[in-house]
Amino acid sequence: MIKFVRFDAGAGAAYGIMEDDRIVEVKGNLFENWEKGEKEYALKDVRLLAPCEPTKVVGVGTNYKEVVAKKGELLPQEPVIFLKPSTSVIGPEQEIIIPKGVNEVNFEAELAVVIKKKAKDISPEEATEYILGYTCGNDITVKDFMEKGKPWTKAKCFDTFMPLGPCIVAGIDGANLAIRMYHNGNLVQDSNTSDMIFNVPLLISYISKIMTLNPGDVISTGTPPGKGVLKPGDVVEVEIENIGRLRNYAL
Amino acid sequence: MIKFVRFDAGAGAAYGIMEDDRIVEVKGNLFENWEKGEKEYALKDVRLLAPCEPTKVVGVGTNYKEVVAKKGELLPQEPVIFLKPSTSVIGPEQEIIIPKGVNEVNFEAELAVVIKKKAKDISPEEATEYILGYTCGNDITVKDFMEKGKPWTKAKCFDTFMPLGPCIVAGIDGANLAIRMYHNGNLVQDSNTSDMIFNVPLLISYISKIMTLNPGDVISTGTPPGKGVLKPGDVVEVEIENIGRLRNYAL
Repeated sequence: MIKFVRFDAGAGAAYGIMEDDRIVEVKGNLFENWEKGEKEYALKDVRLLAPCEPTKVVGVGTNYKEVVAKKGELLPQEPVIFLKPSTSVIGPEQEIIIPKGVNEVNFEAELAVVIKKKAKDISPEEATEYILGYTCGNDITVKDFMEKGKPWTKAKCFDTFMPLGPCIVAGIDGANLAIRMYHNGNLVQDSNTSDMIFNVPLLISYISKIMTLNPGDVISTGTPPGKGVLKPGDVVEVEIENIGRLRNYAL
Repeated sequence: MIKFVRFDAGAGAAYGIMEDDRIVEVKGNLFENWEKGEKEYALKDVRLLAPCEPTKVVGVGTNYKEVVAKKGELLPQEPVIFLKPSTSVIGPEQEIIIPKGVNEVNFEAELAVVIKKKAKDISPEEATEYILGYTCGNDITVKDFMEKGKPWTKAKCFDTFMPLGPCIVAGIDGANLAIRMYHNGNLVQDSNTSDMIFNVPLLISYISKIMTLNPGDVISTGTPPGKGVLKPGDVVEVEIENIGRLRNYAL
């Protein structure tokens, strides 16, 4: 299990490996060849950034069985996907900016998959090779703008609406991880990625048959029951087993 | 009026200025500082590429008055926007790949605006400063996948579904340009950008209040009446006054 981070120790963005409360710099490119460098930093002395720089984030709609069961619906036949732009991505501890004049903004704890290499038209069996690792995602949505017959873009694509972090964990199985959301300290989502309708290899395959996924691109795999309403001043923390906690503040 | 192109003369992608049937290389960066270089090429000796490399393309739904009139609907109160990823962009003469097993794919001639500098929360009055220029766009869509209540992503985001080109024209007014589509040589769309419901400055302002636009990002401003059905083997040509023709082949 390796924990990759992107961080700024004062000299700009760099990649590193997190080992307990220390970060060791990485030389090279996480997506091709890298090795540990000489420099080390105390975690408390650096600012963690979003752990990758996706060219796009592909979000997934309803993807937990319990969500479907609670609505009394049938399981979907195929994934529902949408896009969030690179400009929506923020890192840990950064602020989610709630647009003025909207009634309801939702937070959604999600397992986010980071793509390792260019993926085009691949099978579920091949998908594991294309995964760099997993991080926490928070799919922020303006519910007011989720209108029937309209694209989801206005609801999903505001700047700051895709917090990612704190690290990308490689070498774990994404299919059985506890996933939780704490809203102002209260546990409001509490599930396991094993409840997904379409698992990560199926999602990668499905999406890659529509659009090429680039190294660093992210798939945010849908949220379990319990998504809630975000208000200015709130703190939201996505916690995923073996990954850690992604904390953000609403403005 | 300047015509910027991106081209490959055998040594990789480069920017240039098109002057009649010649291309003069550009030194520097189209979005900041540039000057003409020494090298010149004959247009026939180079391959034109998509004229920019957007981090995202923002598409606009119904945006011509005549389209609304033909449907007998009221004019929309605000623009309908959607995203197409960078991976959907192709250049002139490239092939549009029709996905297997779909019934209806549509072509749509559109005026595409290329953003010059980072645009966040700007007014319509400021918008002109943020425009590098205009090019032709073809918003390819699988109609089968435009389902009520679903995001438009699966319909709009296939690789090759956003042809752009042949050049970016700076120094023209986008508000009064003839726009046409030729389908296998037949004129099937024939309108003028003056018929837009939301003009380019309004669109830039509206979108920039949702998401930051980066240099090179593209807004594809909607299509006039006459969009049609694309079949393998077809040739589609978007022609816009003062810009030129963008030709692509369907596979």
